[in-house]
Amino acid sequence: MAKEKKLVASITSMEEDFAQWYTDVVKKAELIDYSSVKGCMIIKPAGYAIWENIQAELDRRFKEAGVSNVYLPMFIPESLLNKEKDHVEGFAPEVAWVTHGGQNELQERLCVRPTSETLFCDFYKNDIHSYRDLPKVYNQWCSVVRWEKETRPFLRSREFLWQEGHTAHATAEDAVERTEQMLNIYADFCEEVLAMPVIRGQKTEKEKFAGAKATYAIEALMHDGKALQAGTSHNFGDGFAKAFEIQYTDKNNQLQYVHQTSWGLSTRLIGGLIMVHGDDSGLVLPPKIAPVQVMVVPIQQQKEGVLEKANALYEALKGQFRVKVDDSEKSPGWKFAEQEMRGIPVRIELGPKDIEKGQCVLVRRDTREKVQVSLEEVSEKLSILLDTIQTEMFERAKAHRDAHITDAHNYEEFKRALEEKPGFIRGMWCGDRACEEKIKEETTATSRCMPFEQQQISDVCVCCGKPAKKLVFWGKAY
Amino acid sequence: MAKEKKLVASITSMEEDFAQWYTDVVKKAELIDYSSVKGCMIIKPAGYAIWENIQAELDRRFKEAGVSNVYLPMFIPESLLNKEKDHVEGFAPEVAWVTHGGQNELQERLCVRPTSETLFCDFYKNDIHSYRDLPKVYNQWCSVVRWEKETRPFLRSREFLWQEGHTAHATAEDAVERTEQMLNIYADFCEEVLAMPVIRGQKTEKEKFAGAKATYAIEALMHDGKALQAGTSHNFGDGFAKAFEIQYTDKNNQLQYVHQTSWGLSTRLIGGLIMVHGDDSGLVLPPKIAPVQVMVVPIQQQKEGVLEKANALYEALKGQFRVKVDDSEKSPGWKFAEQEMRGIPVRIELGPKDIEKGQCVLVRRDTREKVQVSLEEVSEKLSILLDTIQTEMFERAKAHRDAHITDAHNYEEFKRALEEKPGFIRGMWCGDRACEEKIKEETTATSRCMPFEQQQISDVCVCCGKPAKKLVFWGKAY
Repeated sequence: MAKEKKLVASITSMEEDFAQWYTDVVKKAELIDYSSVKGCMIIKPAGYAIWENIQAELDRRFKEAGVSNVYLPMFIPESLLNKEKDHVEGFAPEVAWVTHGGQNELQERLCVRPTSETLFCDFYKNDIHSYRDLPKVYNQWCSVVRWEKETRPFLRSREFLWQEGHTAHATAEDAVERTEQMLNIYADFCEEVLAMPVIRGQKTEKEKFAGAKATYAIEALMHDGKALQAGTSHNFGDGFAKAFEIQYTDKNNQLQYVHQTSWGLSTRLIGGLIMVHGDDSGLVLPPKIAPVQVMVVPIQQQKEGVLEKANALYEALKGQFRVKVDDSEKSPGWKFAEQEMRGIPVRIELGPKDIEKGQCVLVRRDTREKVQVSLEEVSEKLSILLDTIQTEMFERAKAHRDAHITDAHNYEEFKRALEEKPGFIRGMWCGDRACEEKIKEETTATSRCMPFEQQQISDVCVCCGKPAKKLVFWGKAY
Repeated sequence: MAKEKKLVASITSMEEDFAQWYTDVVKKAELIDYSSVKGCMIIKPAGYAIWENIQAELDRRFKEAGVSNVYLPMFIPESLLNKEKDHVEGFAPEVAWVTHGGQNELQERLCVRPTSETLFCDFYKNDIHSYRDLPKVYNQWCSVVRWEKETRPFLRSREFLWQEGHTAHATAEDAVERTEQMLNIYADFCEEVLAMPVIRGQKTEKEKFAGAKATYAIEALMHDGKALQAGTSHNFGDGFAKAFEIQYTDKNNQLQYVHQTSWGLSTRLIGGLIMVHGDDSGLVLPPKIAPVQVMVVPIQQQKEGVLEKANALYEALKGQFRVKVDDSEKSPGWKFAEQEMRGIPVRIELGPKDIEKGQCVLVRRDTREKVQVSLEEVSEKLSILLDTIQTEMFERAKAHRDAHITDAHNYEEFKRALEEKPGFIRGMWCGDRACEEKIKEETTATSRCMPFEQQQISDVCVCCGKPAKKLVFWGKAY
């Protein structure tokens, strides 16, 4: 038992130090490793397999929504990045610059893409001529680079993986519609697949994307009460089109500017998964995203017939579930601890006594509940159990989130709530950037979003007391 | 008809100018677009969809072979790149260097990965401790950068997409076995899925990968008689392990160096597909890799019931095939020309007269052969037809390849064959690098590989006349 203890004891508890708990989990669950490149991470098989599942499911939903995948260069010439004023101001301070190709200095510096609006604009400028060419609904799966000073695995890394969609439309309405459609795809995906409840809303002017007319976002609440921006969708109107001269000929043979959107979701979401569902034994993965849904653990596997039966069970289940058998020479207790660390939703224990009785034991990772199931019914029961786990994980996360939303009617209540019950604070806002800045400076909380479902919980701004315009979700954020 | 003519006439014929034909096809079939970043390409939806199919099928085969996917940083610190002498000599002259992050100059330059051996070594050095940690069989799908002077879409681009596998093993034999296994996976994939016959063999010392002990390759023959290296697999022995000190403790508690391999296949393969199967009407795609396998073209679609029937046909076929309906307002002739350009394997023509007779017409892209098929049987016949096309495309490509292999017994025959019948030349070789260099300088042909299936077609070297050691496939190459 010494070894098992060591494995489990090696995680700091959430209560003690949430940040250290997070770091321990990403390392011990073998999701990432640190690399020799400062601020960049190595995504190991267990971490990358989660990303592959995110990609597969999201890509399927994208394609149903008429999205085509493309691939654009990873480099952006400096002059191209400079074309849209707000955009370059937002990104230039944090890009990596390529100055030499082989032995030669380049005539013009190239930045490694921090995001690809400018490249897509340059492409669309040549590719769009007539209304018949619209809409363009393209996406790419790639890595991007932002030269951050403080980094944390998944949450803030100098290089990260993401998808970035970039669309061009004939009308302003089409662009708004697409921006909302993609935000809803993100939100549904987070809730249905990652069991992660999110708030859908619009960013304030201060928090919107550099160069956007409007930014929509989904915001999730982590276990420590901090918010995580889990995905964003931007409406650019015709701002970029004017900067890049992207025009089309309409049905009346008139030149018109296109209207554009972009939307992105990244490996940061894996950080969200960890912090929404994890516990002091490690990762807890929702069945729909778990690379391994079920691990069969033979008990007393050296006894005759045990391994055979475990393998037979694997064969019976593998068509329907992502299942594995752990037939390594480790002790069962060690295996249990490892699988808990990795967040595998269900383990099946199968020993000589179970086999005698024609049964096995299903153990849930999330609640640790055990049920005995006859071997004949295991496939059917497992299917129901995985659905139950998925549903209950969402419900638990939602209950936790809802229990950590506090309404504040004035600045005193606002500050007290932040101190006493970290989470989202709902507070009215006058619309003035000065109030956002004051709140951020004094409390480090920021406006997370103006939810689509607005409500008038007070008539005055939670900060300055002037007439209120919008309900805002506030919070400290990753 | 004017428009159709324009579309078709806009491709240069292969006979007239093969290079221009290639450029025309990649543009007109909308596979790529040029970008503002010199030497980098934009992969458009039709091109990227081919890459997605390559990825999906190859990744499936990798996973069956025990490969796990990971993701390592795109940057390599200069000091890390410098650790293996041969490797840095091979790659340093053609890498892009990042010198600044944001406003600050970096303390150490970072190159954008041209390939990731050094990063994987650095990772494995920390990740491998005991024989229990072996083998490591990891792969990543990513883009790499090589600062080439002359570029061509897919074939040689400053940035390209690929997969790179990197493995570490306990013994030299395990590494050799993995190198061969992966080469065979590549070869089988090319032949079975891309209908592209390949020669499997080993590279000479001169042509092997920088830092490798042995490089194996698959070589395909293009329509113009030039060779294309379609995939490579390298055995490093313990060379990199010694440079990076990657050691493990064996069962006897002794420290041992690991043995490593790497293997890669890239978007260059799409260039190969074009040049093996294409014709003067554009692309010809093998059914197994074609993003759209079947296009339904309604004839006189404005007539009552035609579009309805076309859509019903689509509904009946979509579960089994990758099928689309072209119900745009273009003329049927224009649609035919477009689909030929895009290489869609089969089109189904369906007009009022066909509907009356309860039939439709299947037209093969590769041979243009037409068959009338009753609407009841269309799914079954289509399935057989696509298999036939796949098989016959491979057979035609193989017949062309075999017809362009010439045996040369001396240097005169060698040079004459290169002039008169461009293709592979089989010629014996003494093993001396000087002969390879002389042949390359005088004829521009290079040693492509020493085939696994060796044969003694002569006792003397085709260049110098000294005793021969190996049969070599020679040829001009992309």
